[in-house]
Parts: sequence; structure tokens; C-alpha cells
Amino acid sequence: MLRFECDYTEGCIPEILEAIARENHTQLQGYSEDTLTERARAKVRALCGREDVAVHFLVGGTQANTTVIAAALRPHQGVIAAAQGHIACHETGAIEASGHKVIALPSATGRLNAAQIDALCRDHWADATHEHQTQPAMVYLSHPAENGTLYTLEELRQIRAVCDRWNLKLFLDGARLGYGLAAPGNDITVPDLAALTDVFYIGATKVGGLFGEAVVIVDPTLAVDFRYHIKQRGGMLAKGWLLGLQFDVLLENDRYMTISRRAVALALRIKEAFQAKGIAFWCDSVTNQQFPILSNEALKKFDKKYVYSPTAKIDDDHTAVRFCTSWATTEAQVDELVADIDRIL
Amino acid sequence: MLRFECDYTEGCIPEILEAIARENHTQLQGYSEDTLTERARAKVRALCGREDVAVHFLVGGTQANTTVIAAALRPHQGVIAAAQGHIACHETGAIEASGHKVIALPSATGRLNAAQIDALCRDHWADATHEHQTQPAMVYLSHPAENGTLYTLEELRQIRAVCDRWNLKLFLDGARLGYGLAAPGNDITVPDLAALTDVFYIGATKVGGLFGEAVVIVDPTLAVDFRYHIKQRGGMLAKGWLLGLQFDVLLENDRYMTISRRAVALALRIKEAFQAKGIAFWCDSVTNQQFPILSNEALKKFDKKYVYSPTAKIDDDHTAVRFCTSWATTEAQVDELVADIDRIL
Amino acid sequence: MLRFECDYTEGCIPEILEAIARENHTQLQGYSEDTLTERARAKVRALCGREDVAVHFLVGGTQANTTVIAAALRPHQGVIAAAQGHIACHETGAIEASGHKVIALPSATGRLNAAQIDALCRDHWADATHEHQTQPAMVYLSHPAENGTLYTLEELRQIRAVCDRWNLKLFLDGARLGYGLAAPGNDITVPDLAALTDVFYIGATKVGGLFGEAVVIVDPTLAVDFRYHIKQRGGMLAKGWLLGLQFDVLLENDRYMTISRRAVALALRIKEAFQAKGIAFWCDSVTNQQFPILSNEALKKFDKKYVYSPTAKIDDDHTAVRFCTSWATTEAQVDELVADIDRIL
Amino acid sequence: MLRFECDYTEGCIPEILEAIARENHTQLQGYSEDTLTERARAKVRALCGREDVAVHFLVGGTQANTTVIAAALRPHQGVIAAAQGHIACHETGAIEASGHKVIALPSATGRLNAAQIDALCRDHWADATHEHQTQPAMVYLSHPAENGTLYTLEELRQIRAVCDRWNLKLFLDGARLGYGLAAPGNDITVPDLAALTDVFYIGATKVGGLFGEAVVIVDPTLAVDFRYHIKQRGGMLAKGWLLGLQFDVLLENDRYMTISRRAVALALRIKEAFQAKGIAFWCDSVTNQQFPILSNEALKKFDKKYVYSPTAKIDDDHTAVRFCTSWATTEAQVDELVADIDRIL
Repeated sequence: MLRFECDYTEGCIPEILEAIARENHTQLQGYSEDTLTERARAKVRALCGREDVAVHFLVGGTQANTTVIAAALRPHQGVIAAAQGHIACHETGAIEASGHKVIALPSATGRLNAAQIDALCRDHWADATHEHQTQPAMVYLSHPAENGTLYTLEELRQIRAVCDRWNLKLFLDGARLGYGLAAPGNDITVPDLAALTDVFYIGATKVGGLFGEAVVIVDPTLAVDFRYHIKQRGGMLAKGWLLGLQFDVLLENDRYMTISRRAVALALRIKEAFQAKGIAFWCDSVTNQQFPILSNEALKKFDKKYVYSPTAKIDDDHTAVRFCTSWATTEAQVDELVADIDRIL
Repeated sequence: MLRFECDYTEGCIPEILEAIARENHTQLQGYSEDTLTERARAKVRALCGREDVAVHFLVGGTQANTTVIAAALRPHQGVIAAAQGHIACHETGAIEASGHKVIALPSATGRLNAAQIDALCRDHWADATHEHQTQPAMVYLSHPAENGTLYTLEELRQIRAVCDRWNLKLFLDGARLGYGLAAPGNDITVPDLAALTDVFYIGATKVGGLFGEAVVIVDPTLAVDFRYHIKQRGGMLAKGWLLGLQFDVLLENDRYMTISRRAVALALRIKEAFQAKGIAFWCDSVTNQQFPILSNEALKKFDKKYVYSPTAKIDDDHTAVRFCTSWATTEAQVDELVADIDRIL
Repeated sequence: MLRFECDYTEGCIPEILEAIARENHTQLQGYSEDTLTERARAKVRALCGREDVAVHFLVGGTQANTTVIAAALRPHQGVIAAAQGHIACHETGAIEASGHKVIALPSATGRLNAAQIDALCRDHWADATHEHQTQPAMVYLSHPAENGTLYTLEELRQIRAVCDRWNLKLFLDGARLGYGLAAPGNDITVPDLAALTDVFYIGATKVGGLFGEAVVIVDPTLAVDFRYHIKQRGGMLAKGWLLGLQFDVLLENDRYMTISRRAVALALRIKEAFQAKGIAFWCDSVTNQQFPILSNEALKKFDKKYVYSPTAKIDDDHTAVRFCTSWATTEAQVDELVADIDRIL
Repeated sequence: MLRFECDYTEGCIPEILEAIARENHTQLQGYSEDTLTERARAKVRALCGREDVAVHFLVGGTQANTTVIAAALRPHQGVIAAAQGHIACHETGAIEASGHKVIALPSATGRLNAAQIDALCRDHWADATHEHQTQPAMVYLSHPAENGTLYTLEELRQIRAVCDRWNLKLFLDGARLGYGLAAPGNDITVPDLAALTDVFYIGATKVGGLFGEAVVIVDPTLAVDFRYHIKQRGGMLAKGWLLGLQFDVLLENDRYMTISRRAVALALRIKEAFQAKGIAFWCDSVTNQQFPILSNEALKKFDKKYVYSPTAKIDDDHTAVRFCTSWATTEAQVDELVADIDRIL
């Protein structure tokens, strides 16, 4: 079987394994206080174009989301997210388990927009009994969004303006950030994120690493005592250097962007193959995830050779499914898939 | 000003104050372990028509909801509610603060229906990665619903059947239960609730008492250790007999239903007065809360003499507002309001 | 049976019941936003000798403790208490249920002292891996302490100085504050508390009211959004005026202190009666709770007529027990107990 | 500098890196549902000598402790631990953050004993107001204990008997289990743990792996829905096969025990070197951690060449410090340390 169901079916880029092997016998201080991690932090800061951000490396996305949100909010506060946002529907209520409501807003695009956040906050504060409701205090975005679509820089600036108006912290989940940055049409840069958000992260689990997310804390009040929160949420790795090392390697020689660009290019080849057969898409993704809408009959044929992810039932005869590429996807695999798309459809 | 904005602007029926005065110097055991409370428990059990339910008295609705739900769920489980349900939007995230997601379902009627609960559960369990989502484990209903409308017995039976199918506990919030039971067309009885739900409560705060909700636990597994939960959530009143006493008085001589019927009748007079002037309603309430949709111009006139609750903006010129009656509403007050409705509109 | 086991066996001072009856039909705004409550707030501020404190009325002690502590702490922070402190051992883990560790310090006196708080903080911050431990961020005291003993003003000042040194908030539980203020030898005043603590409360549940604690928030950062916390923790009473009214009555004509002084005087008569028979005490309480150490044989005789609280097993033959007085205790009851002490022992 | 301060200064045994490199391009299902992990589960079950246990692999100790305890307890329940237990003092209140009190018992040995657990439970249930206290519902042990000492099989059986008497679940933290099993005098086996506990784990982070703990759930009620808890607590690794692979390698050819035995033997050489110079120890550890009590003057000399962990201040002139060995410690390093002990002391 050829697996295209997600971007984490394989391990990591070989350079990371080589670096681990090279450092395996080095004695390093525990809990991310080692020199290797410090070097990785410097690289993240350089990427952000500013020295005054705090950088912490965590193992995974749910852990990063929970730790950041729980550290940022007081008990009566909630976080605004799109209904399709990862924290709203795919983390087993981790945010609620830390005591906070995810204020889920419906979204046709899978992304939030400034106007709806503004309206929610206006309604909240206009209500004479607003203390009977969860107070909105943070906005959670994913870039790219869970459906592979992008925010524009202008949209992000508008959301920032709304956050400033209503005293909301802005948090951007970058679990697949590389694929967003590498997508055609993307006009957001890492320095933009470091300028416009209060906290964001650069994902490696799905972008070339074994695991790991680099959390960049821009807001200095949120940075206070952050290591306590990491430890409390179970995210303080004894051999924390494993995280730093991965980012040290990924951010060297433009590797993070190189593999992202390559995976996006391969995904767009798959997209074009479906388009050439007149297939419609669940959403217009320009990143490494593609969501063609296929007939159940076609899917049966793909099932013989391919693994993909069912994403949404469209009607009794059609399902939107996900095909992903990653650093590990080969040209040959995509050639084969493209040929089969042509043959089957 | 005449206040119709809610059903808790006054104290309680005089018989309760008389009973408190009578017992004020009696030495009673603390923490609801007194004889008075035991007598009230017996009356609640009699009302339920069964002896095998546990009965606990709590001070208010948010406290009752949080205590029951937190006691019933494991950490990964959530409670299904209508988006307009009290726990979903008017309790400052109290359920989330106890660690649980409120799984809010959209509802045009303000009530849940069996089919949508069934669909949610089917989707959850059909998803191969359901452990990445909050597990639905309880259904929360309000009867009457927050908008004053009613479930039918048949609807309740269907919801119970869905709960049995998917192993969900059924919890019914009866903060205004009396007004529901007393409403024209209601076909649900307290014994029905004791037969069909796992836990429900009979509200007094809004139905004749100073404060207090009688929680009836039908499911024996939920009853285990419930007093620990009450204490932990801050609901264990030192002078717990104050709660028992109120129910002892309210459930004597059919008082609870008598005052409920009277308040509903007064509310229906208000409803008719609005209807006579061709006023539309936000929803078709048959209970003590009425939600006429009034023009802003008309509201300005009412504002000179009446307090009501703005409930929903309908358009730039119209707002749905709430007028409530209670045990304390007098005929004279309603006469005056009815006359003013006729005059103003 | 004559009940001396606690200070909440009866209702409240008659003036409170009279005031409730008087206001019972007044239409008042809900949720403690009424004029009666505002008047009570003003009286509390006057008692504190400062206008810049926030005042909120809550139903009970566990609720007050949980709401204050959860509002004050970030997730990684804990509250220091004596091992005998109410939050450490008699609230079913309510503080932990809100996510925070109670850092319990052993205490021979039942009270904390500045030196042990200082040592704990010094150790915490000196530890290179302090982020692996709960961060101490608040100190919880009870005055009088749970065993009826008192802090001195000098001790309180020293604790304040330690709090300033280590950036700890100081919270004082005054569930029985009246009995402390009225005790012989007490040198702390309410204005002292308003000057030295960040937040404290004046208890009425055990001092003449039906229920209620007046929380005084001195630290303005803690006061922000406090009503959200009250609502979230289930403490927002629909008929909040019931709380305000009780303090309005208790703080009128020095009633709160008058009943406290009287109860303490009665308790000291009981103390002297035991002392006259050479009975030792579990601790040297000067307040309304007295803890004589009695032989099991003597207790059997008291059991025929009196209810008291077993407090601590001293040895196989002796138990420390609690006798309490309150606003409701009569001279005749104490006369009878004193005579029986003389007769039995 | 030579680092002996902990057992996680290096990476992992080379065979693990080789296996990762070998599997790096294999397409494997995510979230620990791959075939590699299944094979590792089978090996853990074989080690336990029973097929009916559930096995889950988590990244670290704090995560394992929090996930297990939160999954096992209802909100009003707490977990009993020695005051020196890892969950009681070195996890930043992670257990409390999940809502549960750690009921810390003082211990001269660093270990719990059956009698003190029994006494605590007897006191709890004998108290007429036990619902005002956290209900003890689980016992947490570490084997070896945090100070490197061991439980005997007989002690473990006695604790199990107490757990049965009071309906407590028994949870054993095996973060350093290998070093305990390999220690001279240890008489506990993995099948004993699978017979006597409800849940325990086999640590790899500190015993040869990069990271990872194998949680073995014996109690079938605790096993229900456990994957939800893993996801909610941030422990569901996308590339979960990394965890399974490590245990697959470690449990092959007796590697786990071989490296444990070797590390213990090296630690005992260090112990003997200190003993030969008449040095006293903080506790009589027989595992890979040794805690000599050294004068500050001697420590200054060691500081020039060695890193160790300060553990406890004994007096103004003496400190107990920790020297650890691990799979990575070489004979040459120990030779050098032993020679220096002889020279310096």
C-alpha cells in the first residue's frame, strides 16, 4: 500500500538521525538547558528577526496548544477558534480539561475572520450580564488552516487589530507552518508572525522532524514562568536536547523551507491530476494536503493500492478525502498516484 | 418601576419565612443531616413515586449543574446540550472549569431532539480516531427550556432511547420545573422524570423559594459519594436545613404547583394582551416567561414604567424581550401591564 | 440534648429574619446588584476604614476560599497553609479541584509563622530546578485559627513582610472573624486586615447570620473580573440581596461584635469550669471554641445530655473534644453545662 | 567535566538508533496503531507473564503519572504518596492541575508502608464527616523509590492487602524499574507487579531509551477508553512507533536487564569507594543512584572535574549529593571517579 493519509507516516530527514547519532554519547544537561538547544533557540530567533522572543521546544501540537492556552488565560476566560480548529474538535477536550472553554465560531472557510471575532466581543461586552458568560481572551488560528487554506497578511493584520481592540491574545498554531510558508500565494513570513501574534509555533512533527514544535512567545507577560507550565503539562523532556537538535538541523541551510516547498510542489501535482479529470475539491488548498471529492465507486478502486483519510461525507455517493505529501514523499510515489488518478477517474 | 425582567425579584412565599422563624432557635445538625431535611427528602421521593432515589438540596442552578456533571463524567467525556442551554452559554464556563466540554448542538427550537443526539453519537463512534474527540457521555435538557418551551413526553422517551443506545446519562435541569409542569399542554410528570432521567432537579429559586434546587439522583452509580462532590464544589451549606425546610413547605399542600399554575396563568394573560395587538413572539412559550418582539419605539414607552429583559436583537428596529411572572406577581401588576400593552401598542 | 458541637446549630439573629420579612416583597435587582447589597458594601468599607476595596458576598467558606484562590493563582502556583488549615484538610480537595496544590506546612500551634514561610520560599527559589515544583504564590491564614487561637498583629506584620519579599498574596479566612476580634488579648482590627492582607473575609455563617461571607479584596489586580469567578464557581445567588441584607443588619449598631463578645464570654465560662477541675486543653483557645481533653469515662457521662465534637484522640483513654458557643447560646444552657462539668468531673 | 548528576545525560543504546534508521522510511500508521508498536506490546505482555493487560507507551514520567491518575480517580478522590514521591514534590503540581490532591505521607525511608496507609484510611472512614475530606482512592509507589531504595515483595503484598481492604487502586511508578530489578537483594519481578498492582510502568527514559515509559494496565476498568486520556493529556505521539520501537529493542535479548545490571554494578563500585573512606550515606541505596554525604570542602574539589546533584543539606558543612550511573557510563569514567574519591577524601 502507498500511504498518503497524513504527513507523519515516516520518520524524519536523514540529517536529523545523523545528528542524533553524532551527539548520542555527548553528555548534555537535561530539561532543555543544554548548549545544543540554546543554539537552536538562537536560530529560531534569527528566523523571527528579533532577539526578544522566548523560545521553547515541545513534543507535539496538543501539548503545545494546551500549555500555551492554560498559561495565558485566567479561569473565567476562553479562547476563540474556528469550529474546525484543531483545539475545537481534535484534541479530546484538552483545552476544556485545563478549565477553559473553546468558543467555537462557525466558518465556511475553516478560518476565522476579523469581523466575526469583533462581533463576538462586542456582544459579550455589551451584555449587561457578561460575567455570566465565558470572557473571550484569546484567538487561536492555524496557518495553514486545518483544511490547507491560508490566511493573507492583510487578514492577519485585521485580526491583530481586533485583538488589540478587545484585549485578546493572538495565538497561531503552526503545526504545518512550513507548508503554509511554502505555498504559492502565501504572503506571510515568520517575522510577520513574530510581529503580529503574541505566541505561535513552528511545527516539525509534520515537517521533517521526528517530533517537536518550536513555541515562540512574543508577549513578555506570557513568557514569565513558562517552564513551570511545560513541566506541569508533562512536556519537559529529560533529554530535551532531542528537540533542540531537530530544529538546529531543520533551520540549517534552509532545510525546513526546502522540504516544505518540495512537498507542496508534489501535492500540487496531485491536485492538478484530479483537476484534469474534472474533480471538485472540498476546499481550495494550496498546501501539502489536498481534499478531492471522489465517488464511492472511485474510492473503492483507490482502496486497492492507496491509503488516504476520509474527511467529510458530501452525499450518499461522494466523500471528500485527504491526500498528503511530506518530506518523505518520493517523485515515484506521486508519479504512480498521478497515473492511477488518470486511469481510475 | 414594575419589574417583570425575571422570576427572582422578590423573596419567597410567606409560609417559608414563617417556617424559618419557627425553627430559628431549634438546634439542628449541620450539613443537611437534620430531621427537617430528611422530611423534605421523603416528600421529594413521594412526589417522584419511588423510594429508591437519592435526594440532595443545593443552593442554585449553576452549582447543581456543575456538581452533577462533574460527578458523572470521566475526564475525557463531555455533555451534549442545546446551544441555548444554560450550561452552554450562561454559566461562565463552569462546566469547562470542571474539565468537561459542553458539546453544543444548534437548535432552532432551543430544545434538543433525539435524532441530532443520535447522529452526533453515530458520527463519534464511527470515526476511526474517535479518541481524538471528546466522548459524548451525557445529555443535558432543560424543562421548560430556557425559552419557555416544553418537551413532550414522547420526545423525552425518544431521547431516553437514544441515551440507552449510546450509553449516555440523561440529566434534566428543572430550574423552572414548576412552570413547565403547570403549563397548558404539558404531559410530563415528576414520576416520568424519575423514570426516564438519570438525574434531574426541581427548582425553587425561581419557583417560590428563597433559593434551592432539589437534585434527584435516579442512577445509583451516580449517587455514590455525592456528598463529597457537594462539599468539594462549595455547595455544602452549614445550615443545610434552610434548604430542606423550603422544600418541606413548598411540597406541602400542593403549594409548589399552586404557585406555578398561578404564575403561568398570569403570564398567559400578558401573552394574550400582546397577541391581541398582533405582536409576534420570539418563541411560543406556554410558561411564565413570554418573549414578545417589540419595536424600539414601543420599548421606549415601556421603559418609563417597566423593567424587562432584552433577549435577542431581531433587526435594527425590533428586539425580543422577556416578561416574567412568578409567585410574587400580583393580579394588579398584570392588570396594569395589560392595560399599558393595550394603550402603548 | 443540648448541642454545643458547633456554632451553626441554630438560624440567625432575629433582626435578620425581621429584615428579610420586611423586604420580602420588595422588587430588587438580581445577582447582588441591588441597592440593599450596595448599602452593605458601604458598611463593610466603612468597617475597613477605606473606600478603595472591592466587597463581594458569598454563601459559604469553601466557596469563598475556592473562588478567591482560583481567581488569584496561575496554574503552576500553589497556596501555603498550615496542615490544619481548613483548605488543607476540610474542604474535600476543593482547591486541588480548581487545579492548585495546597502547600501544607506542619505547625504545632495550628498557625503559620513568618519564618517557615520564608524558609519554604527561599528553598524554592534557591533550587536550580524550581520549575519542577509548585511555585508558592499565596499564603492562607485563618484568624482565629481552626483551633481557636489567634495571630498577633506583630505576627501578621511579619508574615506580610515575608509575602512582600517573595511576591506572595496574603489571604485571611475570617469564617469566625468576630470571635477572634472579640477575644481577650486580640490586637488585630479590621482596618489592620485591610492594610496587611490582599484579600480577607468576614464570616457570618458562624457569627449570627443564616449564611454568608463578606469577601474584601484589597489588591486591585485580584478584584478585576471577580464577578465572573463568583458566577463560574456557582456562588452568584439569584437573590443576592439575601447576603447583602444580612451584613447590612449585622454591621448595624455594632451587632456583629456584640454577639461575638457575648459568645466568647460564654465560652470562657465553660473554659474556666473545666480549668477549675484541672482539665487540660488541646490548645489554649481564647475564642468561642474550647477543646478540653476528657477521659472516655467522663465523655460517656456528658453523652447523656450534650452533643460536642470529637476533635483529636490523645491516648487510649482521652480525647480532645470541642464545645462551641454562638449568638444563640443562652446563659441558661451554659449554667447547666457548667454545673454538669462540676458534677461529672 | 564528567557528568554523574543524573541517568539521562546521554542519548540511548546504539541498537535503538540503528532500528530507527532502519525503519525511518517505512510507512507506518500514526498514533501507536502500527505493527511495530503491536510487537512491542506483545513483548511487554510476555515480560508480565500475562496476556490480559493493556499496554500503552508514553513519552515521560510526569505525563504517565498524570494520565494514569486522572484516568483512575473521580473528582473527590486523591492519591496517597510518600512525601518524597515524585508526584508529591517534583512535578509542578501536575496531579493537582488535573484536579486531585496528592495525600502526602511523611516517610523516614522515602517509601510508604502498609500500616500508615491503613491508618490513614481507617481515620478517613471513621470520621463522621469524611465527605469533608479528600477520599483516598489510590496508592502511588516508586520502585525503586526516588532515593534508590527498594520495596520487598512482602511489603508490596502487604500494601496490596491494604488496598484491597480500603478499595484503593495500586499504581507503581517504574521510571527506574530496571535498576530496581537488577539491584542486589531485590525480590520483586515484573510478573509480581502484574499480579499485585492495578497499573505500573516500565521506564526507558532513564534506562537505555531516548524517552518512553511502557504503562501496563492490569485493572480492566482503568483500561477502558485509555487512549482518550492519552490524547487529552498531550501524550498521543503522531509517530507513536518511535516509542514502540524503543521497547521492542530494549526487551529483545534481555537488553533492558543487561544494561540495568551493568549500571548498578558500576554504581556499587562508586558506593564502595566512598565507603572505603568512611563516608556516610543519605540512604542505603542499592541501585544506580548513590547519595554520599560529603563535606563542602571535599565537594569543592570534586567540582573541578565532576557534575553531581546536590540533594539535601545535612548541616552547615555537609551536603548529601547524588552520583548516578546509566547505560552510558563507562568503566573508564568510574575508574577515574573511584581514583579521585580515594585521592580527595
